[in-house]
Amino acid sequence: MITGKNYIGNTLKANGNITHKTINPKLNIENPIPFYEATDEEIDEAVQLAWDAFKNYRKVSGQKRAEFLNTIADEILALDQELIDTYTTESGLPEGRAKGERGRTVSQLRAFADLVTKEDWRENSFDAANPDREPFPKDDLRRTSIPLGPVVVFGASNFPLAFSTAGGDTASALASGCPVIVKVHEMHSGTAELVASAIIKAAEKTGMPNGVFSNIMGRGKIVGAALVQHPKVKAVGFTGSISGGRALFDIAAKREEPIPVFAEMGSINPVIITPNAIENRAEEIASTYAGSITLGTGQFCTNPGLILTINSAKTQKFIIDLAQKTVAIDAQCMLHPNIKNGFVENSKSVSSQNGAEVVDEITDTVEANYAATQITTVSGKDFLKNPKLHKEVFGPFSLVVTAKDEAELIDIINGLEGQLTGTILAEKEDYANLHDIVDALESRVGRIIFNGVPTGVEVCPSMQHGGPYPASTDSRFTAVGTNAIKRWVRPVSYQSFPNELLPEALKTK
Amino acid sequence: MITGKNYIGNTLKANGNITHKTINPKLNIENPIPFYEATDEEIDEAVQLAWDAFKNYRKVSGQKRAEFLNTIADEILALDQELIDTYTTESGLPEGRAKGERGRTVSQLRAFADLVTKEDWRENSFDAANPDREPFPKDDLRRTSIPLGPVVVFGASNFPLAFSTAGGDTASALASGCPVIVKVHEMHSGTAELVASAIIKAAEKTGMPNGVFSNIMGRGKIVGAALVQHPKVKAVGFTGSISGGRALFDIAAKREEPIPVFAEMGSINPVIITPNAIENRAEEIASTYAGSITLGTGQFCTNPGLILTINSAKTQKFIIDLAQKTVAIDAQCMLHPNIKNGFVENSKSVSSQNGAEVVDEITDTVEANYAATQITTVSGKDFLKNPKLHKEVFGPFSLVVTAKDEAELIDIINGLEGQLTGTILAEKEDYANLHDIVDALESRVGRIIFNGVPTGVEVCPSMQHGGPYPASTDSRFTAVGTNAIKRWVRPVSYQSFPNELLPEALKTK
Repeated sequence: MITGKNYIGNTLKANGNITHKTINPKLNIENPIPFYEATDEEIDEAVQLAWDAFKNYRKVSGQKRAEFLNTIADEILALDQELIDTYTTESGLPEGRAKGERGRTVSQLRAFADLVTKEDWRENSFDAANPDREPFPKDDLRRTSIPLGPVVVFGASNFPLAFSTAGGDTASALASGCPVIVKVHEMHSGTAELVASAIIKAAEKTGMPNGVFSNIMGRGKIVGAALVQHPKVKAVGFTGSISGGRALFDIAAKREEPIPVFAEMGSINPVIITPNAIENRAEEIASTYAGSITLGTGQFCTNPGLILTINSAKTQKFIIDLAQKTVAIDAQCMLHPNIKNGFVENSKSVSSQNGAEVVDEITDTVEANYAATQITTVSGKDFLKNPKLHKEVFGPFSLVVTAKDEAELIDIINGLEGQLTGTILAEKEDYANLHDIVDALESRVGRIIFNGVPTGVEVCPSMQHGGPYPASTDSRFTAVGTNAIKRWVRPVSYQSFPNELLPEALKTK
Repeated sequence: MITGKNYIGNTLKANGNITHKTINPKLNIENPIPFYEATDEEIDEAVQLAWDAFKNYRKVSGQKRAEFLNTIADEILALDQELIDTYTTESGLPEGRAKGERGRTVSQLRAFADLVTKEDWRENSFDAANPDREPFPKDDLRRTSIPLGPVVVFGASNFPLAFSTAGGDTASALASGCPVIVKVHEMHSGTAELVASAIIKAAEKTGMPNGVFSNIMGRGKIVGAALVQHPKVKAVGFTGSISGGRALFDIAAKREEPIPVFAEMGSINPVIITPNAIENRAEEIASTYAGSITLGTGQFCTNPGLILTINSAKTQKFIIDLAQKTVAIDAQCMLHPNIKNGFVENSKSVSSQNGAEVVDEITDTVEANYAATQITTVSGKDFLKNPKLHKEVFGPFSLVVTAKDEAELIDIINGLEGQLTGTILAEKEDYANLHDIVDALESRVGRIIFNGVPTGVEVCPSMQHGGPYPASTDSRFTAVGTNAIKRWVRPVSYQSFPNELLPEALKTK
């Protein structure tokens, strides 16, 4: 049952009087339950509880933390249809997506549980003493990683489960030994409360300290800012817009003690298609990319928003085919009226720039919060001159750039802002000539995909989900995959320590 | 020969008209050579050259980068007595220290050369494809680390060699594949130019691109700020004061594209001595710590500036003994008149706080830039109340705090700012009762030493030199040891890549 209250540690509280409601974007109506913004006192209490919980939680064994994470997964599954219904009602996303995202959320939790039952992730290091070394003896030195402290996680609008309350940021932070305070995304407060109740249940069942998790609601500029400013918060995870992520980064950088903010923000995910690929499989590419551009109503951070080609008659034909195939897919619902308004505004802005031309778009009237898919094209020359054409259009949209030659195409890549991904669609005969393109992409992105689509982010050790700014605020870490745990820890060395006082994993057995 | 000019890439330039001279602190006179502050155009040219050099340098093999680093080491040794004489003339430090620090500098360069002849440091990762996986096939995914781009390194006042021009920051950045622009510390511009000439020679001998290294002089607030603001600079290394490091951090955080600043700043390095240790070996501890407090005229970032004890008659006796032994060591020269003035001011400030009492100090008149060693004491109660007593006194000084009991001692640790190190001096019979102290220290420091001294920072894989703010701006990385290279790289993933286009180390052989 959804109460509309905040979880301040294990306790539901709603002492404030500011409320918000979520929206059912498909029906374009408000959902009935009012959700209460946390008061300053409730925020402070949640952080204080997290701080106190940290003293014990950081010492809880990996085995026990794994049990906690696996129990969260079990409790999320136990929410069953109520969770799926709340998710679809608050997001406009279909039931299949809800179930798929729940599966991802549960498997992320279990992956981090697996990870922390062993100690490898801490990168423990051992240097033996050498008392005979000249001119000075060498001391025994050992290093491990310890958790930073309470972490604030911001729920993401486009992933109500996998990047929100019990998503990758929360799972990795809890796995590392950090308590978590979630700042709920207001678009899906009900989904958030249900998942929070699962985490609280799991914490109680597995004997975790009160305060290891809190679930806080309210406006980002008020409640989010207060959390990031709190001196006992030690790191922040965020997935969302550049303006939102940068605002949190700026707040954190201005603190007396600056703290890391891992914000995964905007990306237009350039896709480079060689003339040979267009020559050999234009239709196949058009079909595949029509699917990728519209997947999840284009509301993925890895959505292919920029397609880079070299101009020719065949390229022009491909662009028309891609546009038609993309627009032929039925219009789908967006997450929220605000997201729909942003899509309309941003797609209009890009397609009204000098030289930009709409190739095809859904022109029939769509339902209130549904997106009218659009494919726009522009020459390489015009794209190079105009940074407004680089702007992300969050939704089912892609800008196809026609460069006059490879040199111009590489100039375009070099002039791009940092990106999460870059993709190359090419033929075997292209390989020998692709080194410059690969080089240019490496400098701009976190992940390069060959003959595939950027959508679909595997949760595995080799995944890098993060790129040069503004794709993320810290390109040295990933938001997806088991390495995401490294965001929440720091190394500590022990010099000449007695065995019995060393952390368990550093002891000589 | 020292020219007083900047190295803009391989070329000596001095187009400006602002100059400074270094000081011989022992003689308290200016050294003769004028050094030219770089102009805005020279700064921009150096960064532009670094940017251009990066395109090639990032692709230079580990073997060739190792050759470059080893040749720098050779060329530094070839500077021979001119380097040692310039070093002592500009720093007031003795010849033995100059040679020791040169040895450390050379061995750091060789350690990073060794490191990059293999690929382990990149943490390469491989996930095999699984085309049969349900519901979606799994793609092949591989991850490596690539260099960030041009790095600005600020020379440190207290390590003219090992943490300056060719010091740990430069060695690790060059090893990673990043070009380096050094902002010279004005106190030792001659030493810096000599070392820079060795780097330039090595770059030319081993065929490295022009711009892989530049050596820039001038005021931190002008030249340093301009370098950190330059859009083509991608990371910063700094060793020095909290005010200096924080200023650079703030500039970097306000950029359109924020960049990481690794500033290793202030630390008072608490040393906890148990009553049993005082009971059993008070004299030995006093002798050892008299040496550690005065080592290098106390001008080390790991200098033991805060000694925490539990009050008793024996503790009082120990404090007097420690103070006498420390003050009995001859007064030594400080690095610069400004450093000496800071020492006088800060030691006066701490010892004039409420409840603080000078136990012993050198009262004879010392030479102009020599430091009058001082040991001061204060009660735990007074220390807890007054953050001014936490302030670092850079020089031969230590504040001994007498806590009333262990609970107060732990309160003191918990109330400390972040520190590079913490030390525990204890007996075997203490071990069972030390867990709370170790826990408290872990949360405040980057390295814990048992029955040793914090001075002396081993260059090895398990070293963590960096701690919670303000010990450093990013506690997740180390400034010393082979892991220091990780500050200058970011991960990149390759999905479904053809073997021939993968980076060498990720190829299937």
